[in-house]
Amino acid sequence: MEKSNMFHTIGIITKPNDPRSNDKAKELSALLKGKGVDVVQGDKQIAEQADLIIVVGGDGSLLNTARTFVDNKIPILGINLGRLGFLADVPATSMVDIVTEVLNGDFTQEKRHLLSCKIEQDGKILGQFLALNDVVVHRAETLKMIEFDLLIDGKFVNNQRADGLIVTTPTGSTAYALSSGGPIMHPGVNAIGLVSICPHTMSHRPLLVPGDSEVVIQVKDLDNGAIVSFDGQTSMAVSVGQDICLHQYRNLIHLLHPKNYDYFEIIRSKLHWGHKL
Amino acid sequence: MEKSNMFHTIGIITKPNDPRSNDKAKELSALLKGKGVDVVQGDKQIAEQADLIIVVGGDGSLLNTARTFVDNKIPILGINLGRLGFLADVPATSMVDIVTEVLNGDFTQEKRHLLSCKIEQDGKILGQFLALNDVVVHRAETLKMIEFDLLIDGKFVNNQRADGLIVTTPTGSTAYALSSGGPIMHPGVNAIGLVSICPHTMSHRPLLVPGDSEVVIQVKDLDNGAIVSFDGQTSMAVSVGQDICLHQYRNLIHLLHPKNYDYFEIIRSKLHWGHKL
Amino acid sequence: MEKSNMFHTIGIITKPNDPRSNDKAKELSALLKGKGVDVVQGDKQIAEQADLIIVVGGDGSLLNTARTFVDNKIPILGINLGRLGFLADVPATSMVDIVTEVLNGDFTQEKRHLLSCKIEQDGKILGQFLALNDVVVHRAETLKMIEFDLLIDGKFVNNQRADGLIVTTPTGSTAYALSSGGPIMHPGVNAIGLVSICPHTMSHRPLLVPGDSEVVIQVKDLDNGAIVSFDGQTSMAVSVGQDICLHQYRNLIHLLHPKNYDYFEIIRSKLHWGHKL
Amino acid sequence: MEKSNMFHTIGIITKPNDPRSNDKAKELSALLKGKGVDVVQGDKQIAEQADLIIVVGGDGSLLNTARTFVDNKIPILGINLGRLGFLADVPATSMVDIVTEVLNGDFTQEKRHLLSCKIEQDGKILGQFLALNDVVVHRAETLKMIEFDLLIDGKFVNNQRADGLIVTTPTGSTAYALSSGGPIMHPGVNAIGLVSICPHTMSHRPLLVPGDSEVVIQVKDLDNGAIVSFDGQTSMAVSVGQDICLHQYRNLIHLLHPKNYDYFEIIRSKLHWGHKL
Repeated sequence: MEKSNMFHTIGIITKPNDPRSNDKAKELSALLKGKGVDVVQGDKQIAEQADLIIVVGGDGSLLNTARTFVDNKIPILGINLGRLGFLADVPATSMVDIVTEVLNGDFTQEKRHLLSCKIEQDGKILGQFLALNDVVVHRAETLKMIEFDLLIDGKFVNNQRADGLIVTTPTGSTAYALSSGGPIMHPGVNAIGLVSICPHTMSHRPLLVPGDSEVVIQVKDLDNGAIVSFDGQTSMAVSVGQDICLHQYRNLIHLLHPKNYDYFEIIRSKLHWGHKL
Repeated sequence: MEKSNMFHTIGIITKPNDPRSNDKAKELSALLKGKGVDVVQGDKQIAEQADLIIVVGGDGSLLNTARTFVDNKIPILGINLGRLGFLADVPATSMVDIVTEVLNGDFTQEKRHLLSCKIEQDGKILGQFLALNDVVVHRAETLKMIEFDLLIDGKFVNNQRADGLIVTTPTGSTAYALSSGGPIMHPGVNAIGLVSICPHTMSHRPLLVPGDSEVVIQVKDLDNGAIVSFDGQTSMAVSVGQDICLHQYRNLIHLLHPKNYDYFEIIRSKLHWGHKL
Repeated sequence: MEKSNMFHTIGIITKPNDPRSNDKAKELSALLKGKGVDVVQGDKQIAEQADLIIVVGGDGSLLNTARTFVDNKIPILGINLGRLGFLADVPATSMVDIVTEVLNGDFTQEKRHLLSCKIEQDGKILGQFLALNDVVVHRAETLKMIEFDLLIDGKFVNNQRADGLIVTTPTGSTAYALSSGGPIMHPGVNAIGLVSICPHTMSHRPLLVPGDSEVVIQVKDLDNGAIVSFDGQTSMAVSVGQDICLHQYRNLIHLLHPKNYDYFEIIRSKLHWGHKL
Repeated sequence: MEKSNMFHTIGIITKPNDPRSNDKAKELSALLKGKGVDVVQGDKQIAEQADLIIVVGGDGSLLNTARTFVDNKIPILGINLGRLGFLADVPATSMVDIVTEVLNGDFTQEKRHLLSCKIEQDGKILGQFLALNDVVVHRAETLKMIEFDLLIDGKFVNNQRADGLIVTTPTGSTAYALSSGGPIMHPGVNAIGLVSICPHTMSHRPLLVPGDSEVVIQVKDLDNGAIVSFDGQTSMAVSVGQDICLHQYRNLIHLLHPKNYDYFEIIRSKLHWGHKL
């Protein structure tokens, strides 16, 4: 039996309430044990013991895992149960082959930044969140837009009336920000993207600021509150007088990919770039 | 008489055939000499002797100056004769005050990347150009689009049929690229922007790659040639089989601004961000 | 005293809870009575007696008035208390002069279509609404998009996953639809516009269908409901299995404008078209 | 032998210098003669004798045919040798079946508007052209934009600085205008679309005006000329002082389609609307 030299304890994350994920995780667990690898589950055990996390789900599960374990600096590999993901890029059908390669050290590793977001009022922190894709400030009521001021490194950028604002990492640039007209940002670009949702001023355009910028959004509208969401998975309500403060998080996640990983191949496939009119 | 400690020999660049530029340059020259500064003109002298270049014209003159003198590492200040420029941001009416401040060391300094572009065929370099704003590959004939392959760091990105492609620095992101739907890139973002002009594939979106990327454009269309232009000021015709190879230039230019320079204030003013529907 | 030949009984609509609107309405009422015109207030009286309605408010008040009185075929004139409106285009400061002209028959008249929207399930009509600007189908929950099928005249157009869909009249094309990337439609264009909000398929584009088309939106998403709003002023929740059915309403409203009314002048002013980069 | 009741003399148009088109035309000719139909070729004979024109080529050939024969009011059917066309929608592989059906009267017929364009100076007409898709005013020199005034029905709309302007029929809305951000216009919409190419004013948006509008474009830029092209197939140079005057042409073309013709099915297929991110 060939033993993995790279990884000795692997945490498996499944998609809750998904029988396919559970079945695949069992298959994966047997594979790993057969290779002499210890398998752990549960957030606490994974955080303390794992030197690799394998997510059996999709991009959504991987986003959640990244936020949870970023401080533990454990690399993450994503098995995709459905269509090819931007992040979870090991097809379930290739799981055995690719996981075997990964255990042998045949993989591509890549770092991705997260955003840290604090909701502050009068110097007090009301909430603190992470996001691998994006932080979205959105109107809470469907019929009303929100108004906010945008500041970068303490400098006023503009006042906007819009349905919302997407603050995106390069990773998130192919997610919600793309639907709102944002550019595609290669993960190697060290920048934060600011993409307005249905802005009422026609000259507003997606804005990219350096990765080490401090972004502050001050909600101005008096009548309605706003919702801030993180990777579209968790959220917090904010009201006037509360500042949404963002910067790159100090820790990065380490994504593992198959050895022949090609960012542009995934983009081509997901965006159907081969298709002509 | 107060003597400048910062700059001892200043080169003045005027806008050719523009009497206003000549008049303003004479006024500037007298001001500088009165401060004990040597004034030089002519490319050779400026390159050899000047420790500051002042451009009396507009963004166009400054673009040209930047490409010419980037290897001499002389900082550049721009006096604007017309409307506020993105680059030449000293209004002619404030010239005396702001130049005086600059001579006293009261200014903001900022580095900007240029693009280097080589036109190659069979390993031979047919032409080599610089651009501070953008390198634009455009169809040569109005009635035909061009077809090209885009490669980043040797990897195929996509095949495009379009009117053209804009390769832009952050500096150029507020120029032609903005008209084609590109994002605004803060000069501190270390990235190269790729913005298609009227792409025939609807899913093509502006793409940002890291600043140290090698960008290659291979013109594929058999019937028509293409034009490559640099800052919209110089150009070269290319034909099938010739590769357009781009990367950040090794030297940067040093732009001087008034001491209270605020990038976003210029953007707000130029893009009329205060105006609501 | 000069007596109005054109209009004998005029209904005045004010903006609720707005003292400026009330003051201006009193001034208007005195003006009208001085010209021998009967003034009525209250929906019932206006509907039965008025041969002209004057709205003292803004575009919002006029939208509401248009939906309320469209079946009574009474022309509507809008006095604007704030910035120039797209619809209410008589500035408060010019009220006396322009109303006097209107009473003398010096005005421009224009017809505008409304949309009729029925929410249906199993052949039963659950709700029936009108809109002068737009009918917007929007996700009810901020974190989830909606999925729907779009049908025109019974033919399947496409399946969309998006934040929502705007069905707009030419009148509404300069309102919310413009923020979502829709075109400007001159009021003389007999068409219905369909503009997706943050569509997840990159090739979706604003679509215009003939004014006599039947538009049906079938919400498909199983987990979350959707909200349908009318001119952004009233709304109804819809759930899966309920169809949103739209067509041009049989009656039109008659908008009165000052005699020198120029549609493009209003557009230029509102969209700041004179401003160059 | 079954004889066609519908069409007695059919003109065949081939794509010049295309052996596949010639071969297919021969096959078609034999088919038609076998059904007792007279076959004619050559513009003059077709114009005088044909009661149906069959184009064996693609959208490009059909555009050319439409402009040539619009005054003869002969319906046109398009056989497509390549990928499905927007206009030529009979696949070459189905030619025999569908032409047989058409001869039997089993088809869908549809009218399409053309644009008439006159280039005028000092009241003199310098050129007169037709277009089924679009009339495009484009800069003649790659490095310079053009400046022009746009007028609708004699009223000033705006002054634009741009790479060009597309004036499109609904038919052309899925051609070049789509690449420039224009909306899709169903052929039943009676409107003319105005889509700017890379406009320098950020608030310019596609504009739709009623089908009976008079559109005038006055080129203002002093240094460079412009090119006006018609369906991207013919063109004329214009200079300052020459007006480009457009309106719907008095005659329409009659397009024949297979009996189960579905506009939205073609759009879905061409725009790949089934593909999700």
